[in-house]
Amino acid sequence: MARRSAQDTERAIYGRDVTEFDRTVAFSDGVFAVAITILVLGLEVPEITPDTDVWTELVELAPQFASYLISFVVIGGYWIQNHRFVSRLATMSYAYIVWTLGFLLGISLISFGTRFVGANAEAPGAITVYAILIAYVSFMEGIGRHIAYRDGLFRDMPGLRKERFDVLCDWIPGLVFLLSIPLAFLIGSNATFVWLATWPAMAVAARFEPGKETEEEAN
Amino acid sequence: MARRSAQDTERAIYGRDVTEFDRTVAFSDGVFAVAITILVLGLEVPEITPDTDVWTELVELAPQFASYLISFVVIGGYWIQNHRFVSRLATMSYAYIVWTLGFLLGISLISFGTRFVGANAEAPGAITVYAILIAYVSFMEGIGRHIAYRDGLFRDMPGLRKERFDVLCDWIPGLVFLLSIPLAFLIGSNATFVWLATWPAMAVAARFEPGKETEEEAN
Amino acid sequence: MARRSAQDTERAIYGRDVTEFDRTVAFSDGVFAVAITILVLGLEVPEITPDTDVWTELVELAPQFASYLISFVVIGGYWIQNHRFVSRLATMSYAYIVWTLGFLLGISLISFGTRFVGANAEAPGAITVYAILIAYVSFMEGIGRHIAYRDGLFRDMPGLRKERFDVLCDWIPGLVFLLSIPLAFLIGSNATFVWLATWPAMAVAARFEPGKETEEEAN
Amino acid sequence: MARRSAQDTERAIYGRDVTEFDRTVAFSDGVFAVAITILVLGLEVPEITPDTDVWTELVELAPQFASYLISFVVIGGYWIQNHRFVSRLATMSYAYIVWTLGFLLGISLISFGTRFVGANAEAPGAITVYAILIAYVSFMEGIGRHIAYRDGLFRDMPGLRKERFDVLCDWIPGLVFLLSIPLAFLIGSNATFVWLATWPAMAVAARFEPGKETEEEAN
Repeated sequence: MARRSAQDTERAIYGRDVTEFDRTVAFSDGVFAVAITILVLGLEVPEITPDTDVWTELVELAPQFASYLISFVVIGGYWIQNHRFVSRLATMSYAYIVWTLGFLLGISLISFGTRFVGANAEAPGAITVYAILIAYVSFMEGIGRHIAYRDGLFRDMPGLRKERFDVLCDWIPGLVFLLSIPLAFLIGSNATFVWLATWPAMAVAARFEPGKETEEEAN
Repeated sequence: MARRSAQDTERAIYGRDVTEFDRTVAFSDGVFAVAITILVLGLEVPEITPDTDVWTELVELAPQFASYLISFVVIGGYWIQNHRFVSRLATMSYAYIVWTLGFLLGISLISFGTRFVGANAEAPGAITVYAILIAYVSFMEGIGRHIAYRDGLFRDMPGLRKERFDVLCDWIPGLVFLLSIPLAFLIGSNATFVWLATWPAMAVAARFEPGKETEEEAN
Repeated sequence: MARRSAQDTERAIYGRDVTEFDRTVAFSDGVFAVAITILVLGLEVPEITPDTDVWTELVELAPQFASYLISFVVIGGYWIQNHRFVSRLATMSYAYIVWTLGFLLGISLISFGTRFVGANAEAPGAITVYAILIAYVSFMEGIGRHIAYRDGLFRDMPGLRKERFDVLCDWIPGLVFLLSIPLAFLIGSNATFVWLATWPAMAVAARFEPGKETEEEAN
Repeated sequence: MARRSAQDTERAIYGRDVTEFDRTVAFSDGVFAVAITILVLGLEVPEITPDTDVWTELVELAPQFASYLISFVVIGGYWIQNHRFVSRLATMSYAYIVWTLGFLLGISLISFGTRFVGANAEAPGAITVYAILIAYVSFMEGIGRHIAYRDGLFRDMPGLRKERFDVLCDWIPGLVFLLSIPLAFLIGSNATFVWLATWPAMAVAARFEPGKETEEEAN
């Protein structure tokens, strides 16, 4: 790796029309695609016989399939979110590209968390690790939005109040997952149902979106 | 994840010329490429000795290689189908992008189904799981076509009759695979030969394509 | 999968400027990238202790590393070859896209062949399987060139003599690897050294390239 | 593989606007994305019980997570470096594309090195293998820069002195890692802390950048 003088690095800004912008997107999509697809390698094939009752077998598969599905929805949801976020960017800065790597670290680790929970579904320790991972990804998402705001990367720059509101919304899933950690020690694996609170929490938050009331009044 | 107000989300339409259209395609291709390539990780290397008869060895490899090949053809076939389908789209809607994830869920799981059948080739339960997977993918393909129709994403919008006909055709492989499930409990692994009926079934269906008779008369 | 009427399918030709051309290339690159990278999953980590002699350890790693390296060079070489081949294409036909899948089947299987040879380096049966795989890829490469010729996909169409010569050259590695099969039963794993004959064989063949003598005379 | 006449091959130069340039970048990104994401497959899920102390568990995970993180930072860092390097290229030569493969060989092997160190953290032999791998990647990076210089691929060609300086900077991480090998036999796994010297070493080197003093004087 060549030395980096702070000056020329920080100034580097890549527009939508250059290979460098698309390449960061392509690398992200590659990591997302590999991460979401190798989740399947964590599914263990049950040993069955021709006489195994199919219903018993499907019931046996259910828990590991459930944790597979949760992770698929989480990674897929973050991909869609990233897809929509990048569609609002006009340029990328060096800081944003470095941030991308940090964000993808969390995305890659989700398959580890899935295997962990799948193998130790009853252990609060496994739920803790998974919740910390999601909180990391959720926290990083807000950081990425802040970097894009700070470096002026948006096509249409949002106002400061709107930007802060969006960062807080990014952090909601993280807060919900962190909340499930102490609960896991009280109520065991039932604490995972708390994760479903992410959707209503975000729906409630959306009602406080700055400028929205006025917009609705205008209609 | 930031909150999503139903209005701005549903309206988002990405044309062929923007990164967002290509990115959905690239992510799909990534998942397809990983899914089709990691099939090979399910192939178990047989332990042989310098004295092992090569013929015996190849015969021993045959069953797991057969299920590998079926899945390669299925994933590859759906990729080509998706390739041709997307070539008819002028734009993508948010609903279509969400659908893509649901479709890719099925594609990713095929490698699990392959390992399942490979390890339990004689068990009707394994054949059931594989057939349900293919039925899911087949069903989702028709749903995707319907979303594209509903949101007006095609370059040349097909007529309603044509659209319904195409959705039904999408579902033919699913119906054939579902049909093989009860048969698996009657005739065991021979039921997998029913899967080959997909091709003649689609060829017969093609004869009923709306507008085709008139076209042929015109010639 | 929707039905395919032979007419509209066979006629589909995608130029360099459309998503469909690039997508086939991107999917190929995805499979090549995954196939070449997951080779590393076949490398087994030796159990060593702080007292293990490093030299002993490296010598122990050598055979599996050698088969890893051969496969890396083979997949990488075919990627470069495919890269150069596609650079000569102006369009892609449906037949060419289907061919791509058949070609990628062989590329994906190379990692299986590598694990097979790695686990059974002394067995002629393993060498046979690997050689058949390479022969398949080599044979398919010539078929792809022929399809591109038949469907008129090249920017500058080569003459018939030149095309036939190139197809024969594509098949040279396959012939060399097939030749190593009987030798494997006579001289064991030494037969793998025959594979190195691919390079001189291609160098000799290059001297018979049609039109080359005249070109050289002209200089 | 078709024969390659030295003439037409060596002359092939692909500009930024053609598929061939982008394809080499896309293939590199694919290998980087797969390599960085499959690192996670090396993380072993610890068997825990509902009574396992979470703190004990996290401490137990720490060593393998540390080697995961080092490799993530190394691969990610080289991806960013490659991203920035390619952004300076106007064209790619055949030699550069072949070099890319050799470079990616090192990148792919890092996940093997990670598993090796993870399984044998106390063995100097494992540290040796990892350090050799990084030295290879570091050395190759300098070679790539030299090829780009020799073949005139840069948008703005750097001067000879600047080019030589940059190649030396590319080699700094390699030298630091090679230095850690003899130390591993003296001080065991503590030698890995030497790797952190890469950053200060590069910062010191940056002060000797040709032309920089004059630039600073001008300010």
